[in-house]
Amino acid sequence: MKISFKNDYSEGAHPAILRALVDHNEDQQAGYGEDIYSLKAKELIKNKLKSEQSEIYFVSGGTQANLIVISSILKPYQAVISATTGHILNNETGAIEATGHKILGIETADGKLRPSDIIPILENHKNFPHQVMPKLVYISNSTELGTIYQRKELDELSQFCKEKNLYLFMDGARLAQALTSEINDVNFEDLAELTDVFYIGGTKNGALLGEGIVINNADLQQDFAFNIKQKGALLAKGRILGIQFLELFKDDLYFKLGKNANVQAMKIKNFMTEKGTKFLSDTSTNQIFPILNNSFIEQLSEKFEFYVWQRTDETQSAIRLITSWNTKDSATDQFLNELNKLL
Amino acid sequence: MKISFKNDYSEGAHPAILRALVDHNEDQQAGYGEDIYSLKAKELIKNKLKSEQSEIYFVSGGTQANLIVISSILKPYQAVISATTGHILNNETGAIEATGHKILGIETADGKLRPSDIIPILENHKNFPHQVMPKLVYISNSTELGTIYQRKELDELSQFCKEKNLYLFMDGARLAQALTSEINDVNFEDLAELTDVFYIGGTKNGALLGEGIVINNADLQQDFAFNIKQKGALLAKGRILGIQFLELFKDDLYFKLGKNANVQAMKIKNFMTEKGTKFLSDTSTNQIFPILNNSFIEQLSEKFEFYVWQRTDETQSAIRLITSWNTKDSATDQFLNELNKLL
Amino acid sequence: MKISFKNDYSEGAHPAILRALVDHNEDQQAGYGEDIYSLKAKELIKNKLKSEQSEIYFVSGGTQANLIVISSILKPYQAVISATTGHILNNETGAIEATGHKILGIETADGKLRPSDIIPILENHKNFPHQVMPKLVYISNSTELGTIYQRKELDELSQFCKEKNLYLFMDGARLAQALTSEINDVNFEDLAELTDVFYIGGTKNGALLGEGIVINNADLQQDFAFNIKQKGALLAKGRILGIQFLELFKDDLYFKLGKNANVQAMKIKNFMTEKGTKFLSDTSTNQIFPILNNSFIEQLSEKFEFYVWQRTDETQSAIRLITSWNTKDSATDQFLNELNKLL
Amino acid sequence: MKISFKNDYSEGAHPAILRALVDHNEDQQAGYGEDIYSLKAKELIKNKLKSEQSEIYFVSGGTQANLIVISSILKPYQAVISATTGHILNNETGAIEATGHKILGIETADGKLRPSDIIPILENHKNFPHQVMPKLVYISNSTELGTIYQRKELDELSQFCKEKNLYLFMDGARLAQALTSEINDVNFEDLAELTDVFYIGGTKNGALLGEGIVINNADLQQDFAFNIKQKGALLAKGRILGIQFLELFKDDLYFKLGKNANVQAMKIKNFMTEKGTKFLSDTSTNQIFPILNNSFIEQLSEKFEFYVWQRTDETQSAIRLITSWNTKDSATDQFLNELNKLL
Repeated sequence: MKISFKNDYSEGAHPAILRALVDHNEDQQAGYGEDIYSLKAKELIKNKLKSEQSEIYFVSGGTQANLIVISSILKPYQAVISATTGHILNNETGAIEATGHKILGIETADGKLRPSDIIPILENHKNFPHQVMPKLVYISNSTELGTIYQRKELDELSQFCKEKNLYLFMDGARLAQALTSEINDVNFEDLAELTDVFYIGGTKNGALLGEGIVINNADLQQDFAFNIKQKGALLAKGRILGIQFLELFKDDLYFKLGKNANVQAMKIKNFMTEKGTKFLSDTSTNQIFPILNNSFIEQLSEKFEFYVWQRTDETQSAIRLITSWNTKDSATDQFLNELNKLL
Repeated sequence: MKISFKNDYSEGAHPAILRALVDHNEDQQAGYGEDIYSLKAKELIKNKLKSEQSEIYFVSGGTQANLIVISSILKPYQAVISATTGHILNNETGAIEATGHKILGIETADGKLRPSDIIPILENHKNFPHQVMPKLVYISNSTELGTIYQRKELDELSQFCKEKNLYLFMDGARLAQALTSEINDVNFEDLAELTDVFYIGGTKNGALLGEGIVINNADLQQDFAFNIKQKGALLAKGRILGIQFLELFKDDLYFKLGKNANVQAMKIKNFMTEKGTKFLSDTSTNQIFPILNNSFIEQLSEKFEFYVWQRTDETQSAIRLITSWNTKDSATDQFLNELNKLL
Repeated sequence: MKISFKNDYSEGAHPAILRALVDHNEDQQAGYGEDIYSLKAKELIKNKLKSEQSEIYFVSGGTQANLIVISSILKPYQAVISATTGHILNNETGAIEATGHKILGIETADGKLRPSDIIPILENHKNFPHQVMPKLVYISNSTELGTIYQRKELDELSQFCKEKNLYLFMDGARLAQALTSEINDVNFEDLAELTDVFYIGGTKNGALLGEGIVINNADLQQDFAFNIKQKGALLAKGRILGIQFLELFKDDLYFKLGKNANVQAMKIKNFMTEKGTKFLSDTSTNQIFPILNNSFIEQLSEKFEFYVWQRTDETQSAIRLITSWNTKDSATDQFLNELNKLL
Repeated sequence: MKISFKNDYSEGAHPAILRALVDHNEDQQAGYGEDIYSLKAKELIKNKLKSEQSEIYFVSGGTQANLIVISSILKPYQAVISATTGHILNNETGAIEATGHKILGIETADGKLRPSDIIPILENHKNFPHQVMPKLVYISNSTELGTIYQRKELDELSQFCKEKNLYLFMDGARLAQALTSEINDVNFEDLAELTDVFYIGGTKNGALLGEGIVINNADLQQDFAFNIKQKGALLAKGRILGIQFLELFKDDLYFKLGKNANVQAMKIKNFMTEKGTKFLSDTSTNQIFPILNNSFIEQLSEKFEFYVWQRTDETQSAIRLITSWNTKDSATDQFLNELNKLL
């Protein structure tokens, strides 16, 4: 079996989570998220956020979180602003448009949006009522390119959105990895202040499944549960999500797992950097994009699984390596050994 | 703690399922349902159905299954025919209408649709193009009232749908309970022939979550996976569903669990019948609706949880009792003892 | 050629309207409803309504008005309450559901909704979040059965909706006929106070096409024009609608035309009543539903066109006769003569 | 009053159309497009197209035509391919996305799509089922930039679409102008062969309102009328559209009007070209985009209305001049005189 660096969801769940599912299996609990585990997990997360007014809702996956949040917030004529690398734009089978909303894409170098990226969109959408109204800014942290937002960047973006009457929504499928990056200076609790909505990705950080949507803007909370049910996302056995998030947050397991993903990736990055390898983008989380000779890539792929991301010139390509909450030192070491032999 | 007869999803999963999740936890598998467990589970179910052309797709819950199947089949102007007791009509927050389709409800005595119920709908929808076109017949087996379809009834309905160019879709949230009812004469494999689509309910029969959509009509299979992804229902760790269905079907655990639910309910039904209790409907599965004095109901509810279903006269009400795959003899016996004291 | 009593849209427009279209044909005007005719017509209607805060929007037809108004007001999980005879429920090809919203139908004797009809719907929709939230009450005046709302009835309904936090929307496809019925006691300007939204039907009262949506509730006006454009209802040459409504309202032509439709129908009704004919419902507008022998209907249909509405027993059926803004005395007289011969 | 060159819908209708509306005003006709004028107009257009299998449907406007055609053809997960200048992409308030479908935009120099533009889109959409499936190619002729497709270009595009199993849909809001351009070599009847669907724009070529959708692909015709009704586009007095199209096509008025629009624009273009003016794009229809000094533009705008299209450098901008079916020689001459004085 080859070791896989293709993604961060190729194994099951962290053992502590499985254990908790087994331990609480026989309790008779109320359905649809009214179980005590879900209630406790929500309370715990609110406490970590130090945000009394935030409300938390658990759903199964990222696309589901994105489509429910966005379709619940926007009026029919309102649109989303996203980097063209945004997951909703090209990796979710038109899930947002399927709920009726246009996404306005912005080309960026690093997958991050800044006010200066958004201003032209606003200026080019003033032909009332012939154009959609841009209303919600969608960002990912960490981004689909592995980069992260710094506190100052988030402050500016958040401030800008408030001034322009735009909602700010952060896709946190890889939030743990962002917040535990070496260069991160954003606190978990900052998110309650800086975004209207964000979600805490569980699937890509050690849960079997599950994302925790956090709605900070009280106006957007009203009747939100209807949307979850209507989109088919309200699990009868909501306990499965509650138990997992309780486990992830009670001893900061969530952040420890994110940290491991980053540490393993940085080991590879540092090693390759020393060897003179170039990268497609400068990342600090669990995704790295080294540029390698095609023949070299071929050899590497005999022992490891990963995506060839894009051809960079006639003889070279960037590959994408993803490490995870569950990447063992041994797997990384094997990869480094192989690199050492080949580089 | 009171013992609950409120629903069949108040506990976690059957221990064999949890064990399998633990056993396969560390395998690195392809995401999005391409893992070997999902592939094997699909093959196993196809074999049980003796239907080479059927295709199977796993999703998380019943509302999700219903909305994806229906929205993928119907053109914008086509409508669903359902009994007014149908789950989609009144218990799914308008999930079907949210995808653009009207549901035409039919009042029935027992929650079952017959050709004679549907004919008037077809005759009253001929004012082209001012009315929707009825196109898909939605039935539940067992029904929301606990009744089941007999083979002859399904044959007639299936034949009728073919003649009238209607699709037949069976909601099998409680399929195991239907197929293991004492009075059932429908085989699992009959469903591959008699329906265009049906689904195998896991959530209410021992899984943590999961429904297996079976598309028998090859015309409806094309590109179906797009719909699953677009509606946010494609789990990154699809293995969770595959592992569970593999476990449920490999030694017919699925049917054993359904059987237990029925047996426990029938014990209560038979006991009460002997005591002279009347029922709202004559059911043979895990839902029973005895009519009891209100004072008696109050006493019963001190020790057990259940829904008061509807007031039948000034002094009496029907309650709904649901037993499950996990209802123990001891729980049923406690209930019978209490009944014995009170009746 | 047979004279038609099938509907009130079988001819073109009132001559004054055609004349105005010709007179103003060569003016160069701004597009999309910003022409001076549309602006003046809106001002004129506001003045007649004595309602400074009402805003008026012209669209082409009734289904269009209904779907734009309803989809612009409701959140995805909110539903419409309507009499089962409501035009939106069975005569608009699921246009409302196509925008994502369920319609909850209520059986009524006369096509009118009263608070007592609505209360059970509200009480049966409390299973949060598993059911849609009833939020908008849709009524027609005159109704699809030719009946009208009295002032007291509207007061009560309006008051009830405010208490229950429901929106009240009146479909006025035949508003002129309602407000000029002999038994009407509602003023045009009452509608600005009693409804959140209503529309002024032009198509069925002398215009080539056109309905004037009046939004009285200021909360519902914001950005409404986006919805018109998005649904394809913003005519480039909006002047066509403006010119017509200006003509209809400048000398109360609108009400005179409605009056004529009613007068002609009442002549027939009174004549038949004297002859002992029974009616399916007691109407005071331009729709009447006399019950006649089938053989008699056959004879009548040799000279006149009308719909056979429903069979009432083995030998008799109700027919629907509709008179219009353009029904001439001579046509009605011919019909009465024929009746006289046959009755 | 300034003379307007802002658009081609600033006046009413061609006098022959108004006359026909007056002449046939009192006929009693069937509603909803079943009147004899609509039936005759459809027959006439089919004859001109020499295409027995084509079916024609009249609707009120371009956005309406676009959204009905596209939403009726595509399955939920299928997407539209369009030039980024396409009217549906940026000028219709997200009408297509509101029906659930993504538009994939392609940057082009001249507003026209070629196979080489589309190939990369197809190649970048192979990550099944995580991306939408590109399925319909939307083109405008003439384009939003005033350019037109040559026969050879259409042949290649049509052939390509057939090979790739894509539908080809031509927005003909300004079809008359395209087909009467000096450089055009496409026949009206070619469109029946080369496209799956196209529409004949009436609003921008002399009608009060109205577009004639022509469906050539028989698979796409089935039940199409349902879609028209459901989207609120079926006029009760369909005669209004039928009478107009009958008038437009009976003596080729449609093409004469398109020709006039082009002739007037070319007079201005040629005059300016002689004077050394540069243009933003090389157009042969009724839209021209001359680049002028800003001070010059200011002077011109004192006597004429037009849009300033885009700034080209610090001192110059391109303006958009649109002539129409109704632009008189006298208006063009006045403009040329003014130019002469200023240039």
